[in-house]
Amino acid sequence: MLAKYVPILNWGRAYRRDQFGRDLIAAVIVTIMLIPQSLAYALLAGLPPEAGLYASILPLVAYAIFGSSTSLAVGPVAVVSLMTATAVGRLAAEGTADYASIAMVLALLSGGILTLMGLFRLGFVANFLSHPVIAGFITASGLIIATSQLGGLLGIPSRGHTMPDLLASIWENLARFNPYTLAVGATALAALAWIRLDMKRRLTAIGVPVAIATFMVRAGPVAVVLASIGASAVFGLGERGVALVGDVPQGLPLLAVPGISLELVTALIGPALIISIVGFVESISVAQTLAAKKRERIDPDQELIGLGAANVAAAIGSGYPVTGGFARSVVNHDAGAATPAAGAFTAIGIAVATLALTPFLALLPKATLAATIVVAVLSLVDLSILKKAFNYAMADFIAVATTLGVTLVFGVEMGISLGVAASILIFLYRTSRPHTAVVGRVPGSEHFRNVLRHSVETTPGILSLRVDESLYFANARFLEDCIYARVAEHPEIRHVVLMCPAVNAIDMSALESLEAINQRLGDLGIRFHLTEVKGPVMDRLEHSDFLDHLTGKVFLSQHAAIAELSGAGDV
Amino acid sequence: MLAKYVPILNWGRAYRRDQFGRDLIAAVIVTIMLIPQSLAYALLAGLPPEAGLYASILPLVAYAIFGSSTSLAVGPVAVVSLMTATAVGRLAAEGTADYASIAMVLALLSGGILTLMGLFRLGFVANFLSHPVIAGFITASGLIIATSQLGGLLGIPSRGHTMPDLLASIWENLARFNPYTLAVGATALAALAWIRLDMKRRLTAIGVPVAIATFMVRAGPVAVVLASIGASAVFGLGERGVALVGDVPQGLPLLAVPGISLELVTALIGPALIISIVGFVESISVAQTLAAKKRERIDPDQELIGLGAANVAAAIGSGYPVTGGFARSVVNHDAGAATPAAGAFTAIGIAVATLALTPFLALLPKATLAATIVVAVLSLVDLSILKKAFNYAMADFIAVATTLGVTLVFGVEMGISLGVAASILIFLYRTSRPHTAVVGRVPGSEHFRNVLRHSVETTPGILSLRVDESLYFANARFLEDCIYARVAEHPEIRHVVLMCPAVNAIDMSALESLEAINQRLGDLGIRFHLTEVKGPVMDRLEHSDFLDHLTGKVFLSQHAAIAELSGAGDV
Repeated sequence: MLAKYVPILNWGRAYRRDQFGRDLIAAVIVTIMLIPQSLAYALLAGLPPEAGLYASILPLVAYAIFGSSTSLAVGPVAVVSLMTATAVGRLAAEGTADYASIAMVLALLSGGILTLMGLFRLGFVANFLSHPVIAGFITASGLIIATSQLGGLLGIPSRGHTMPDLLASIWENLARFNPYTLAVGATALAALAWIRLDMKRRLTAIGVPVAIATFMVRAGPVAVVLASIGASAVFGLGERGVALVGDVPQGLPLLAVPGISLELVTALIGPALIISIVGFVESISVAQTLAAKKRERIDPDQELIGLGAANVAAAIGSGYPVTGGFARSVVNHDAGAATPAAGAFTAIGIAVATLALTPFLALLPKATLAATIVVAVLSLVDLSILKKAFNYAMADFIAVATTLGVTLVFGVEMGISLGVAASILIFLYRTSRPHTAVVGRVPGSEHFRNVLRHSVETTPGILSLRVDESLYFANARFLEDCIYARVAEHPEIRHVVLMCPAVNAIDMSALESLEAINQRLGDLGIRFHLTEVKGPVMDRLEHSDFLDHLTGKVFLSQHAAIAELSGAGDV
Repeated sequence: MLAKYVPILNWGRAYRRDQFGRDLIAAVIVTIMLIPQSLAYALLAGLPPEAGLYASILPLVAYAIFGSSTSLAVGPVAVVSLMTATAVGRLAAEGTADYASIAMVLALLSGGILTLMGLFRLGFVANFLSHPVIAGFITASGLIIATSQLGGLLGIPSRGHTMPDLLASIWENLARFNPYTLAVGATALAALAWIRLDMKRRLTAIGVPVAIATFMVRAGPVAVVLASIGASAVFGLGERGVALVGDVPQGLPLLAVPGISLELVTALIGPALIISIVGFVESISVAQTLAAKKRERIDPDQELIGLGAANVAAAIGSGYPVTGGFARSVVNHDAGAATPAAGAFTAIGIAVATLALTPFLALLPKATLAATIVVAVLSLVDLSILKKAFNYAMADFIAVATTLGVTLVFGVEMGISLGVAASILIFLYRTSRPHTAVVGRVPGSEHFRNVLRHSVETTPGILSLRVDESLYFANARFLEDCIYARVAEHPEIRHVVLMCPAVNAIDMSALESLEAINQRLGDLGIRFHLTEVKGPVMDRLEHSDFLDHLTGKVFLSQHAAIAELSGAGDV
């Protein structure tokens, strides 16, 4: 029973030496990748850089205990960092102790929400974030994050978490840019971009083995950080107006439960819910993709518990909201991680780095971290989704465009909320006006098809109508109008036959409409029949008195209905 | 073109003498019914009684010009009056000039919303109020209204627009009840109840013709009002602590546009939207029911414009939000109303009554009006809907119970909002976990049915799965899980055949899932096929590159798929 919720009790008992070796190698590689990222994302979240390191220690241990994915690398990620900055920025000023403490409360609430969702098996809620909404949201977030780092690259202040605010703020301060900062930022950006896009090819071209070249690409950003620190010391960049990270407390985070008030919970519960769901969706997609490659299965509800535990750990370990990172998990998987233990080993690596690195970090230019973020998030931006959605269906295009546009202009919370609302409303609108077709018999067969698409035979006096949707409150009146309009046009109709192969449910509102149709057609001397009603729908109708009042019959097939009604001689 | 939006230009040109006679008779009967109701509902809305009369003059003229129903009787109604009291009561104290002016602004906003909805043809929005939600809401409103009048019947103050508030307030003041008020209230209540339930039977039993008996039943409430005024004068009830209506300004309402501020609009726009939709739904249902009896058709979008005009007229004529009343419209129809002119004649009747009646109203005990309301609204209460919904389907029962319970405890706006939200969420939840069935061939036929419900033949190595729902974001991942689980259980499977007769749409998220399924099954050496894909869905798939990558084929019928795959010898 306990092992159901604590997967480590299962895989831990059978932990083998070969797994240990693979996990250790993966952990070393992920640690090297995570150090600059965690510093940079903390800055993006408006927190001191050490918060990023802290968020990469305890949460990883907690996930190793409660998580179910053998590949997922948990920690600070770009989109959740932006969402944290948006949510916390409303309540406190960046750089204050309050700000850091509110970020911990946000992690605590998010952890609580995720854990509860897992215990109540509410993982399915994530399904309501449609693919177009997620794609539009991630692309817009990437653009906002990249823009927000322009200030850091230029050495000017930039404020805001929406495109208009950021652009206005950058435009206002543009003239005051610092040339030394720009030099550091541009150099770091160029180096990181080259490492990411070109270095592996060059190294292998000169004979470096692929494995070593791959490792060097992953270690590259750490080298850029070290080089920046060196340059900062040699050229005295701090005295030339280049913003440096500054003193960072040495040592591991203190464990403490952040101070909570009802007021704070009320202000943060909405953002915490959105962060939880977005983080979960991002995490579960990569976890499932990687699990599929290993022929493993991920239990979404256990993942909720694992991520919930990680966020609670982030809260008590001076961190901020975390989730599974896409690129980092892929690296973890490629490096051979065999069990969640790889994450725990990464945590040890980060803890060691925290103790060893902090003295040097004071000299690190913030522009280097800004460059790290820009290179990382530009891979999130994928505007081709707009074209793809446009070609596929207008409904999907509206969902992408709404999410993308609203996120850029009004921010992440509004963007994801309106995106979800738009995709649900479009779905409801579509189902509220179902496709209907008058059908006739395909000559020489028992098949009935749309009279407009096929050359078919119809029987005068009988209206055969197929409705391609479940009947429920939103389309109940539509069906009434549809039938009345056709009956009014064709006064010769004596039988209306409703063909129901695509009707998967009939709710009470639709039942009322069917009763109204039956009665009104009856008043006009027209009999009302149903055909091809599915078992579960028929079961339901038998619980009502609809069938007692039906003027016509329920036929097993459309063919049986037409055969009997046209043969009965009363048409 | 103009005549499309102004129906009077059509029917007015052909207005005949016999229609005039019928409209006049209906107007007299409705006027007599409307006088006590309009006074009472104004009190229910927290307004002075003359506001009810004013709301029964200009709005009726406006509806006669712009409305399309020949039976609908527009004016103050119980549920909208309660909703007005709830909305305005948050912003001003009852009895103040501000209160009355805010009620006018509410009518103006509601009129604007209804008119815009009509012009943009948004009548379909009303379909999202499902039958269970409306039934639960009307029953709860009736209970709240009846309870709210207990104070008036007992002569004690009662406050609040929710059950807990009302009951607490009545309990608190119960000891201070006024015996004279109770005597008046109980007598009026008994008289009105008798008139409604028993008088017609008694009169016809002693030989009174049915038409005269029916007229006397409708005039009965006016007689009770006159008798109360008489008793009030004779016994000096005012001096004995019985609350009287008091001085009412004599004359017709002044025309004026109420004072509007952005702040007021922001505070009222939500309630105005809810009042508009609830009023529209109540109105359109009775209009359509009565139109059907006359073999007429109602255009919902024109009805929106008619009701919108009526509410704008209510705003500039010192009234408050109005809509078509159920009981009153039935009376109007039964009395023979032939055109919307009947409403205009009713307006003249109320205007005359306003000039003639107001001197007498000062002496009218408020308890009589409370009794009028109680008798009128108890017909709204129908708890049998709970049982009916429970027997039919759990989803409908949850929608009724949520709406009923939340309305009673938290008020009308919360009740209708959560009711709509609950019914939509239930629908989404249901469609997010579609019914799926493994199917096999019914022996000796080309029919494929559920293996659990029918004795059918299956082919080893082929999984034939039917999914009974459109594929969209909310169920895309469900389908993936469903297929992977079955494939994992049966390693002998070489072909997965998805049978799609009930799939009415495939959105982009579902397309991604199908691509993922196709690829993952491909990795396992399993081919993926589709059968019985509908025309419009196939059109859509052809716009994507899904079919290029599909490892299997798209078959016209399930039978064709099984015939080819089992005959191919590779299973």
